[in-house]
Amino acid sequence: MSESKSKAAPLRVGVVLFPGFQALDVFGPMDCINVLSWSHNVTLALLSSTLEPVTTKPPTVASAIGQSVLPTHTFATAPCLDLLLIPGGIGTRGSSPAIEEVISYIRNVYPQLKYLITVCTGSGLAARAGVLDGKRATTNKMAWAEITGLAVKVDWVPHARWVTDGNVWSSSGVSAGVDVTLAWIEEVYGSDMARKISNIIEYTRHEDPSHDPFAELHGL
Amino acid sequence: MSESKSKAAPLRVGVVLFPGFQALDVFGPMDCINVLSWSHNVTLALLSSTLEPVTTKPPTVASAIGQSVLPTHTFATAPCLDLLLIPGGIGTRGSSPAIEEVISYIRNVYPQLKYLITVCTGSGLAARAGVLDGKRATTNKMAWAEITGLAVKVDWVPHARWVTDGNVWSSSGVSAGVDVTLAWIEEVYGSDMARKISNIIEYTRHEDPSHDPFAELHGL
Repeated sequence: MSESKSKAAPLRVGVVLFPGFQALDVFGPMDCINVLSWSHNVTLALLSSTLEPVTTKPPTVASAIGQSVLPTHTFATAPCLDLLLIPGGIGTRGSSPAIEEVISYIRNVYPQLKYLITVCTGSGLAARAGVLDGKRATTNKMAWAEITGLAVKVDWVPHARWVTDGNVWSSSGVSAGVDVTLAWIEEVYGSDMARKISNIIEYTRHEDPSHDPFAELHGL
Repeated sequence: MSESKSKAAPLRVGVVLFPGFQALDVFGPMDCINVLSWSHNVTLALLSSTLEPVTTKPPTVASAIGQSVLPTHTFATAPCLDLLLIPGGIGTRGSSPAIEEVISYIRNVYPQLKYLITVCTGSGLAARAGVLDGKRATTNKMAWAEITGLAVKVDWVPHARWVTDGNVWSSSGVSAGVDVTLAWIEEVYGSDMARKISNIIEYTRHEDPSHDPFAELHGL
């Protein structure tokens, strides 16, 4: 790392976790940011209601397997953040105390953030927190009617791999989280860094935010 | 789930974890298998030397951030498996006790497996265990010289998104793990199931195993 980079202020990243988050919604973007941290100053807070492990197993799918991830902070002890990542998943549905706490946290923290990235139905949590009101955003295309129905004040964009509006970067479903994160890295760290990371993870990026075969698949 | 499916023998999946595994090497494939488990009987064992959380942070990269995942079993208490997934990452390097235990476990369990999937430099662990001897396999293209140099008895295939030889499915770097896993699901569960999962995760598959722009990038 160059001296200038090592002295640069860290990028302070937070991720909200809740039971039934979609694994790839978190770990696609995080893999990109993990690789970024090999050469750049990054701090990470994995946030949940408690410090108990959080499983990807959806509470409502009896047969599902899951993996459990350890939070580093509760919402009550969350540090100041530059970037908050909100994953989606079956667990975003409903109004469990865990999900209501996520939504309250998003509502309270958003004014302090530099950037917000939502993946998949994570945009539904941001919408329910009110932080997408008046903004353009996208979401998972299979869950389109359900998620867009949660928030009529959002200008939902049906045909998009991802959408940017101000400091909000919202992506389509699951694997689109990698594309929005690499696009965000390109914006903030430059195209060379985004290319370096996509080459390290051997990922051929979708670089056109309007590329969306899944909107077509679902007749949107 | 249909009655016949619910009575079908479960797919018993195991994943080896070690400090410095690459997050997407595990969670790309696992996201596919998580979605499979919504409709099919799957059991999961996350395996490590101990039951302590295992971090993605590479032990040798001081600046790196990481996420910690909870194992469900130790190598000593591992259940019988049908499919073992071996991720790669910077943590595969060297001969720490943790890595030597992973390699011993792979060597001992391989004869009992129906299928082995390696992602990225995870093929280096399988190669060091000797289970790739005489087989065709591929690996991460940036780490090509290092990994192929570990095992001269392996028929390393330089230009491949993934390679199958018998019951061994080996992929190229990181994100190629999603492609090899969907190809494996297509083989075992059929093309409709593979398509259904790739649509749910909004992933446009690379369906040609010889498609490999990263081999070209690295002059292989």
